[in-house]
Amino acid sequence: GYTTDPSKILFTSRLFEIMVFFLGLAIIMRNLLSNLSRKNKRLVFELLVAVFLILSALLRWKAFGDFSEEALLFTRKYFVLNVLVFLIFVQELGKFSLLVNRLKLSPSLVFILSFSILIMIGTALLYLPSATTSGISLIDAFFTATSAVCVTGLIVVDTSVAFTHFGQIIIMTLFQIGGLGMMTFTTFFGFFFKGSLSIENSLFLRDYINESNVGEITSTLIKIIIFTVLVEFAAAVLIFVLTEPALFPNDGGRWFFAGFHAISAFCNAGFSTLSSGLYEPGFRYLYDMHLVVAITIILGGIGFPVFINYYNYVYRLLKGIVRSALYGEKYKHTPRVSNINTRLAVYTTAALLVVGFVCYWHFEGNHTLSGLSSYGKVVTAFFGAVTPRTAGFNSVDMTALSVPTILIYLILMWIGASPGSTGGGLKTTTFAVAILNTWSVATGKMRVEVFGRQLTAETLRKAFAVIALSFLTIGLGVFLVTLFNPELALIDVAFEIFSAFSTVGLSLGITSSLTTASKVVVAVVMFLGRVGTLTILVAITRKAAELRYKYPEETVFIT
Amino acid sequence: GYTTDPSKILFTSRLFEIMVFFLGLAIIMRNLLSNLSRKNKRLVFELLVAVFLILSALLRWKAFGDFSEEALLFTRKYFVLNVLVFLIFVQELGKFSLLVNRLKLSPSLVFILSFSILIMIGTALLYLPSATTSGISLIDAFFTATSAVCVTGLIVVDTSVAFTHFGQIIIMTLFQIGGLGMMTFTTFFGFFFKGSLSIENSLFLRDYINESNVGEITSTLIKIIIFTVLVEFAAAVLIFVLTEPALFPNDGGRWFFAGFHAISAFCNAGFSTLSSGLYEPGFRYLYDMHLVVAITIILGGIGFPVFINYYNYVYRLLKGIVRSALYGEKYKHTPRVSNINTRLAVYTTAALLVVGFVCYWHFEGNHTLSGLSSYGKVVTAFFGAVTPRTAGFNSVDMTALSVPTILIYLILMWIGASPGSTGGGLKTTTFAVAILNTWSVATGKMRVEVFGRQLTAETLRKAFAVIALSFLTIGLGVFLVTLFNPELALIDVAFEIFSAFSTVGLSLGITSSLTTASKVVVAVVMFLGRVGTLTILVAITRKAAELRYKYPEETVFIT
Ligand SMILES: [K+]
Ligand SMILES: [K+]
Repeated sequence: GYTTDPSKILFTSRLFEIMVFFLGLAIIMRNLLSNLSRKNKRLVFELLVAVFLILSALLRWKAFGDFSEEALLFTRKYFVLNVLVFLIFVQELGKFSLLVNRLKLSPSLVFILSFSILIMIGTALLYLPSATTSGISLIDAFFTATSAVCVTGLIVVDTSVAFTHFGQIIIMTLFQIGGLGMMTFTTFFGFFFKGSLSIENSLFLRDYINESNVGEITSTLIKIIIFTVLVEFAAAVLIFVLTEPALFPNDGGRWFFAGFHAISAFCNAGFSTLSSGLYEPGFRYLYDMHLVVAITIILGGIGFPVFINYYNYVYRLLKGIVRSALYGEKYKHTPRVSNINTRLAVYTTAALLVVGFVCYWHFEGNHTLSGLSSYGKVVTAFFGAVTPRTAGFNSVDMTALSVPTILIYLILMWIGASPGSTGGGLKTTTFAVAILNTWSVATGKMRVEVFGRQLTAETLRKAFAVIALSFLTIGLGVFLVTLFNPELALIDVAFEIFSAFSTVGLSLGITSSLTTASKVVVAVVMFLGRVGTLTILVAITRKAAELRYKYPEETVFIT
Repeated sequence: GYTTDPSKILFTSRLFEIMVFFLGLAIIMRNLLSNLSRKNKRLVFELLVAVFLILSALLRWKAFGDFSEEALLFTRKYFVLNVLVFLIFVQELGKFSLLVNRLKLSPSLVFILSFSILIMIGTALLYLPSATTSGISLIDAFFTATSAVCVTGLIVVDTSVAFTHFGQIIIMTLFQIGGLGMMTFTTFFGFFFKGSLSIENSLFLRDYINESNVGEITSTLIKIIIFTVLVEFAAAVLIFVLTEPALFPNDGGRWFFAGFHAISAFCNAGFSTLSSGLYEPGFRYLYDMHLVVAITIILGGIGFPVFINYYNYVYRLLKGIVRSALYGEKYKHTPRVSNINTRLAVYTTAALLVVGFVCYWHFEGNHTLSGLSSYGKVVTAFFGAVTPRTAGFNSVDMTALSVPTILIYLILMWIGASPGSTGGGLKTTTFAVAILNTWSVATGKMRVEVFGRQLTAETLRKAFAVIALSFLTIGLGVFLVTLFNPELALIDVAFEIFSAFSTVGLSLGITSSLTTASKVVVAVVMFLGRVGTLTILVAITRKAAELRYKYPEETVFIT
């Protein structure tokens, strides 16, 4: 049934008006942009509809003077018309996306635009009166939407207090789409082009899609979604089981909690419906649940390419076993199961977890770990090693961390998760490539080799560029926030910006005290960190033509 | 004549004893290490001398019980013997360096060892009672010697108060040798191998020296020394002229001041005989003198390869003009005067100076620039742009800098001077290569090109390694100092470590309050920054054999 709350009626009415207005504009634009000669007849009709729609919107916006207040109740009276207009709107949206497709935008640009549009839609939705308990400023809605879409988890308002159930569902949807979209995009960017030698190809998906491998893309997409749903469902069930009913008003609330945190964990989003995250009294000592969350985070952060690599291995293994069992065929061993990317991602992840665990254990013994049970200490230290890369959940009081831990967190946050994952940061592989290159230069090797493979020059150049850009972004971010919030300590600002860039979401507690300018800076850093500075640069720079010349080589002194 | 101050006699006596002792040891070692069969006769004689020398040292150290105090006056009584022993000592030192040469150490290792030995000698000399006004702890002597040899200029004790005239001369000598040595070494490392394709060749000088180009090396060395002496002499004269006689007790003091600061400026050492540096009352408003110091700093920091590049250009130009004037020959134009290294170094230096100037002007208008005359503002802003790269002089109160300026200083310090110069840091060329590579990747180019030349893959890999190592070193340094001095703010510690790594020498005032462990950390960071982390890694890692195989190439996801 319709609500009778005047403010809600006003809002839906306004939304409807905006839709009608844009509908009219869209029809005109479409006709202007499309080939005129072919459909003159339809053109006249559509232009009339457009003019009608725009005029009616203008009329309702009192562009021609004040009309009766009855206009406000438009949505109530002309129900069928509303539904029709809504359907036309959706149809036009679809046509619009086709139009975008016809514009032959680079995939990088499509990627960036989708994230931007998603953030705008999210901002609008979170700005709805029904999303918040007592209103929210536009900048806070924008910040929260950016944080959710970029799966960062930095918050300027308390998710559990400021947002209604509806608002929380919006946030959850945003980070689910953001995380999944990120995983899909980065997987596609990297996955299909690992054999390619040129950087252009691996960054411009367009030429690839034109070819006849839409099937492969679809099947990969389906695998990504199945992988995501399976892990999230399993995590949700486990979280449900491992929490106590007494903590929630009803089972629905418990399921919502479990689902929200499962998705948030897998997407490395770091959002929580609890004010203090997992440190909330009642949840603080549920170590088994913490462990489930930590493992979900790792699965989300290891990257889809790694998963698919192991999936193919297990699939072939099982196929071989079944075949040999059924038909008596000889078992065929697959010699090379994991590619370099998988090995680098898995080994680096493992190494960072161990380093993180040992450091956390050592430096937090007298801080956040003191007073915990042995099992609690182990789980909390493990959780403390997992969360900065780049989940952003906290199972301890962040402000109680020791300074050495904070500095180690800066490094771990900066490195982040693996490529093709829901996590952010520099990526484990980039970090590993940097180390391998340094070692190779130090030992005087002409090539960078690992696991019996040679890294391509493009891999090295891209890793170098990504690292350079990460420092540029972080440096600028810290500089600007310091400029706009001069009262904040450098360590807090640095932590905040590293956290934003790597979309971690941990904070030493300054997020809500940022000025509007600083919030915009942090939001931009989140976006740059999520979409990738290199992706953005690739999107906005003109693609160089193929080089049909060659300059003489010259060495520069690097000492 | 001889001094009659007992403490001085005691000291020179001790020094003499140490020399005698090591002389004995050296002779024994040399005979043990050299081929025994060839010189049996000399061996017996030398061993006898060695035993005599060692025994006499042990005797004087009262190893066999207490002898009369007359032993203390040994140096006074046996003057000729002393001179003889001293000559033998020098001769043995020469033989020892030949021995080192025979060990076929890599130039990297020789380079590192020379700096280490110089630091040790410096520490011993600064620890002398006559070097300080009221004594100094060993760690402070070590820190000051490291700071001087590494031309950093970070100080734990006030150079003007704690050290005597003699001590200041030691410091001056140390940074003159350190700066010149650095310039020589880095020039040789890079200069002769710019055409070489392999990293090994450019890092291992040995094979090169074995060939017949000792003449070229000698002539380059002579040019370096002439360049240094000319600039330092001109700067000293100008500084002398531009200071007022009233500020000094006599003309000797004024000359010493001029010489000390000319050398310190050219070597980018940052040491000053004034407690507050150029901010000292009386010197604070000598803007012309500041300008001379700034230009001397730039000349020292631009790098010898750039100088020689322009020198050759001017030389050929003049030769052409003279020839055409004398013999009527047609003037031959030299098409390519400046190589890529020169252009990158000069353009990056210019760009950084402009950026530094604008930022300083903007962010210090209400801070350190307020109340100055217009000329004073321009010179101070210029000086403020020059000094963080990597001179370390201050013409303002460092603690009065605004936070944005401090953050910009961090970046400028990190980038530092040009290769083959007396300055430290990442180097302008490395920074430029990082930017060029990023741009090239973003525009989808397969190669990194600049000024009609293509950068070699080795240049890129080395630059990548140098940047990675710089962050490793700085990160570790900040972490350890924070660990040992938990009370210090991150911004102060970061500034200190960036300053140490790039051998800048600016400080926000925490150097003297560091614990001994932190002082060691800062000293090590200075050393790593000066000698170059890559050089050290190259020296300590085993050189890989030439690769006679090739692994298949594989791309890693870098997103
Ligand atoms: K996150
Ligand atoms: K310096």
